[in-house]
Amino acid sequence: MSFKVLEITPVKLDDDKSELILLDQTLLPGETKYLHLTTIESIWEAIYKLRVRGAPAIGITGAYGAYLAVKHSRADNFDDFYAKFKKAKEYLGSSRPTAVNLFWALDRMEDCLLANKDKSISDIKRALLDEANLIRQEDEDVCRSIGEHGLTLLKPGMGLLTHCNAGTIATAKYGTALAPIYLGQERGYNFKVFADETRPLLQGARLTTWELMQAGVDVTLICDNMASIVMKNGWIDAVLVGCDRVAANGDAANKIGTSGVAILAKEYDIPFYVHAPLSTIDMKTKTGKDIHIELRPGEEIYKAWYEKPMAPEGVKTYNPAFDVTDAKYITAIITEKGIVYPPYEEGLVKLFE
Amino acid sequence: MSFKVLEITPVKLDDDKSELILLDQTLLPGETKYLHLTTIESIWEAIYKLRVRGAPAIGITGAYGAYLAVKHSRADNFDDFYAKFKKAKEYLGSSRPTAVNLFWALDRMEDCLLANKDKSISDIKRALLDEANLIRQEDEDVCRSIGEHGLTLLKPGMGLLTHCNAGTIATAKYGTALAPIYLGQERGYNFKVFADETRPLLQGARLTTWELMQAGVDVTLICDNMASIVMKNGWIDAVLVGCDRVAANGDAANKIGTSGVAILAKEYDIPFYVHAPLSTIDMKTKTGKDIHIELRPGEEIYKAWYEKPMAPEGVKTYNPAFDVTDAKYITAIITEKGIVYPPYEEGLVKLFE
Repeated sequence: MSFKVLEITPVKLDDDKSELILLDQTLLPGETKYLHLTTIESIWEAIYKLRVRGAPAIGITGAYGAYLAVKHSRADNFDDFYAKFKKAKEYLGSSRPTAVNLFWALDRMEDCLLANKDKSISDIKRALLDEANLIRQEDEDVCRSIGEHGLTLLKPGMGLLTHCNAGTIATAKYGTALAPIYLGQERGYNFKVFADETRPLLQGARLTTWELMQAGVDVTLICDNMASIVMKNGWIDAVLVGCDRVAANGDAANKIGTSGVAILAKEYDIPFYVHAPLSTIDMKTKTGKDIHIELRPGEEIYKAWYEKPMAPEGVKTYNPAFDVTDAKYITAIITEKGIVYPPYEEGLVKLFE
Repeated sequence: MSFKVLEITPVKLDDDKSELILLDQTLLPGETKYLHLTTIESIWEAIYKLRVRGAPAIGITGAYGAYLAVKHSRADNFDDFYAKFKKAKEYLGSSRPTAVNLFWALDRMEDCLLANKDKSISDIKRALLDEANLIRQEDEDVCRSIGEHGLTLLKPGMGLLTHCNAGTIATAKYGTALAPIYLGQERGYNFKVFADETRPLLQGARLTTWELMQAGVDVTLICDNMASIVMKNGWIDAVLVGCDRVAANGDAANKIGTSGVAILAKEYDIPFYVHAPLSTIDMKTKTGKDIHIELRPGEEIYKAWYEKPMAPEGVKTYNPAFDVTDAKYITAIITEKGIVYPPYEEGLVKLFE
């Protein structure tokens, strides 16, 4: 017996290692189009226009972009080659100046280049290609590992609720919160997934349903305010979410609305799992109170997507991009190094020992 | 010192008693247009096309429609006059066959006609006008009374959260959940109101913000999934909602998402008030489990309002129009006859003694 599995790879090089093949997320869910990018300008544009989103996916794109920028360089000495790389790095970094992961990946590429400075230009190019591939592969391994650990908490046939998109298209593969679902799918678990549409930007409706349907997962779209009734109906056995940052005490910042889902889960006695790569766990942030919440324009609520504005002109709005889920509502935090249970102060420290 | 007050009257007759003046809710919030309707066909169309919504407002519209349908009748005997009325009643009833309040109002108009059958045609016409006006006035009185009782639970400057639209435009005036807010506004209470946008049909974004802004109330629009963070921020002192039906044990059916807001309110220790005219309290319904939840088309979630569909073709959806808030989450039920506290089994019975 075989099952339909996940076949989407949102960011990769082609077989000739000369084209970046990138899923254009801005066209989803209406159109599935893979861009074939060879120039650094087109890669810059793809990041800038949010054709690629999700911290890991952006980092991988930046790394491949840095490689492709110097792949055809005719520089015959290290200094010229390095100068060209630096220029490309700076240019790519300007595509999304707030994307921490983009700079992390570009810095790593530069470190690799410098570590190989005594080699031939041709060998340095190969090292850069290997490094970019490694960044991609490491992310896939992290996600897969999170999926394996997370899957141990789930049973075949379970009903699962997820919020926003912490899926394959935001990463190298598998995603974080959706990783256990994909691995379960490969093994015939037949989960029944409910996806919150996730207002205001509708990542659940546009992206999560799309990628789960591609992999043949049974997914049902609901509005965010329907989470309570589906839990009350007895349809949800676990809630799986990703996160943007976990504080040292286990408080977790994630897409707006996550904290409400967590409180409902507690009330209905449903486990609430946060899926967090170690890179998102910030031991220097003591509690959720220390996490700054980004406020975004109200137009996202009443204007974006709509044919005409859906609220009166001049309406006041409050549009936080994230909220913080208190540790007390989190049943477990699932990382690539294993599952952490409360008390999180102790468990999270051990991850870094 | 004077305060801006509520000046919207969504359904009324003009001074000559020959035109129905109706706020066209389908154009809100972009355009504020009052229709001047004289023909029964145009009134039928207004109900059918949802230009008027809210059970009380529809009932009042039907009552005025039935009056205007026979106002100019040249019948010189009761039988002919009654036949014309019956035909008009049947026709108006066909505009929205599931609207219980429409039939309630039309039946009441017929009862009035029959009670006056021995009078002159001219006197019967006057009696019908009086009855329609009474239906309107009674609804306004009920709403105002709910507002007065509700206001005793609130203090000046409070932050209030509401879900959906239980406002003036759904009733003769004041609404139910918004009635305490309007009465407070008349008295300078300076509430800070947060309105859930209320997916999928956006009654909060389109209607609640509009009518509160018209009356000068300080209102902030949020997405439904932001209720948790505004409560956590300490901005909400009470939640005010309306309801569609209250069961004998206090369980209350209301717009989808209400039960989630109630659970959050309990978790954040914020009072949760349900505003319920006696007409919505159904002692024959034992508990919320006996309330049938209407399921509506998924297109409302991913297609309505949008320029293009926001979810993949063929996506499964679950789109319940209502949910049931368990009595244990309801701090008090506010009716025109007073405030009922738990245990509701006892308190609600007393309302009807």
